[in-house]
Amino acid sequence: MNLTFLGTSSGAPTRQRNVSATAVQPEYGRAWVMVDCGEATQHQLLRTRLSPLKLDAILITHVHGDHCYGLPGLLASCQLNGRTEPLTLVGPAAVWAYLQAVIEHTEMRIDYPLKFIDVSKSLALEQGGFHITAYPLSHRSECWAYRLQESRVPLKLDVARLEAEGVMPSPLYGRLQRGESVTLDDGRQLEGKDYCIPSYRARAVVIGGDNDRPELLAEACRGVQLLVHEATYTEDVLQQVGPEPQHSSAARVARFAEQAGVPALVLTHFSPRYLLRPRRGGDRSVDELYIEAQRFFAGTLFMAEDFQTYRVLRDGRVVEASD
Amino acid sequence: MNLTFLGTSSGAPTRQRNVSATAVQPEYGRAWVMVDCGEATQHQLLRTRLSPLKLDAILITHVHGDHCYGLPGLLASCQLNGRTEPLTLVGPAAVWAYLQAVIEHTEMRIDYPLKFIDVSKSLALEQGGFHITAYPLSHRSECWAYRLQESRVPLKLDVARLEAEGVMPSPLYGRLQRGESVTLDDGRQLEGKDYCIPSYRARAVVIGGDNDRPELLAEACRGVQLLVHEATYTEDVLQQVGPEPQHSSAARVARFAEQAGVPALVLTHFSPRYLLRPRRGGDRSVDELYIEAQRFFAGTLFMAEDFQTYRVLRDGRVVEASD
Repeated sequence: MNLTFLGTSSGAPTRQRNVSATAVQPEYGRAWVMVDCGEATQHQLLRTRLSPLKLDAILITHVHGDHCYGLPGLLASCQLNGRTEPLTLVGPAAVWAYLQAVIEHTEMRIDYPLKFIDVSKSLALEQGGFHITAYPLSHRSECWAYRLQESRVPLKLDVARLEAEGVMPSPLYGRLQRGESVTLDDGRQLEGKDYCIPSYRARAVVIGGDNDRPELLAEACRGVQLLVHEATYTEDVLQQVGPEPQHSSAARVARFAEQAGVPALVLTHFSPRYLLRPRRGGDRSVDELYIEAQRFFAGTLFMAEDFQTYRVLRDGRVVEASD
Repeated sequence: MNLTFLGTSSGAPTRQRNVSATAVQPEYGRAWVMVDCGEATQHQLLRTRLSPLKLDAILITHVHGDHCYGLPGLLASCQLNGRTEPLTLVGPAAVWAYLQAVIEHTEMRIDYPLKFIDVSKSLALEQGGFHITAYPLSHRSECWAYRLQESRVPLKLDVARLEAEGVMPSPLYGRLQRGESVTLDDGRQLEGKDYCIPSYRARAVVIGGDNDRPELLAEACRGVQLLVHEATYTEDVLQQVGPEPQHSSAARVARFAEQAGVPALVLTHFSPRYLLRPRRGGDRSVDELYIEAQRFFAGTLFMAEDFQTYRVLRDGRVVEASD
């Protein structure tokens, strides 16, 4: 299961970072989903192996431009490139109103089925290989986090149960694993489906939108391997800008993640003031956000970069992937 | 006077070409204007020396997405970066309706003065160092070409006239050139402004939008040094796709430019099927568009590339600039 960051800047793009978009790919199948779609997301995709034609759903956290201004262009290019498959768009009602207005005013044509789901109407969705649920956040505009749990986990035979029931390894095991009915020598009849269990726990991640109250994600984060959350500012800058923008500091997110027992945390959506490679004295560095978060969070911590892929392994560990 | 291409692809971006936007800088002053603003134009600007804060006017040819989807993001980033100077937006009324809808639906905030001018209301504008006029084109949507003539040309003394009037070179020449009144020994009084003339002819360019009738630009092109026009297809492809998209072939534009006596022609807005560097047999090449145009046009011919700057020299010649 892969997460690829297509944009990690808040508000405006920089030379190193585009505005928000994150691709999520399940381990099985070619379909994938995307959370947010800032301007030039389609341009970022041209530099990856991700095909917009295989994109199954776009989940928008909120209607602010740095999270959705890439939608019209991406959808228009899908049309130009001959897409016929349906596409599902999820988000606050305002996102649909925005998109409809753009389509109407700019004579944009979409012939493939485009379905909108208002996230506020108790979302529980199977799409792109994921079971998707949504959780409300605290921001200036209606904003949501999405929890994506993989739908498909290969099954394995429950050998412990079989052995406990006195069924020892034999060619019957193979038939049970294929889901067949099997009659034992002693006359007992076993159904394969009763003896198949998931070969690992279904992986799940939470990807938040803009939010100044990370603790709202306590329930969403139960049992997940990874939380992706904005850390727009360090605590000192958050104090300077005041509460009005309704963003989180690295410290606040890290503190929550530690308390919630989330094993891995990827921070993103950095204010453009934090540079990837500071050049002059006085330049702020994204390293400051890392250092601040590390003081409060003991788990696996990453600072997202554009085009970086993070892989959630079957055993739940999160690692940087090289492709 | 410089033209910098920020996007040269039609419809959708490619890895080599963004969608339409062209920066035009006068020789004097730091203000500049832009024609069209496709998605990710602000991203392209990050890779140039052009400052969005010095952008004085944006002229939109028509409301199709590949010519205006970059507007909301660019205007929002100007706000984030502290712009206070007014910005003028020119285009069909539909462009303003589109932008207003986006602003409203996405809670976008613009505090600097943003003025819209409906181009259909007989446009004649002084902006960004240019005298700007507009000419209607033929496309599926209301579409315009813009003619930009430099406003400021340094004056020089009309030495021929002075000598013809018997005023021979002397320190009086300097005073006349500074615009002063001068009394000659014979009692004649001369006003400097009567003896100052432009030191070269004001340069002018025409930048067209999407258009299937280049001949509509005959009047606009009178006396200009350069025409920038779309050549979306070669003639064979235009025949295949049929007249419905209402675009021009390289041949048609070249034939018109030759007849109109335009000295230099830059073609742009190429269908993504024409590759900059074809890789496989069967790949179409942008060279085909060049070869087709060259058959009909004997003047200076360029095929636009992203980030290429073309300079109109004081003597009217058009050259590729290295910065």
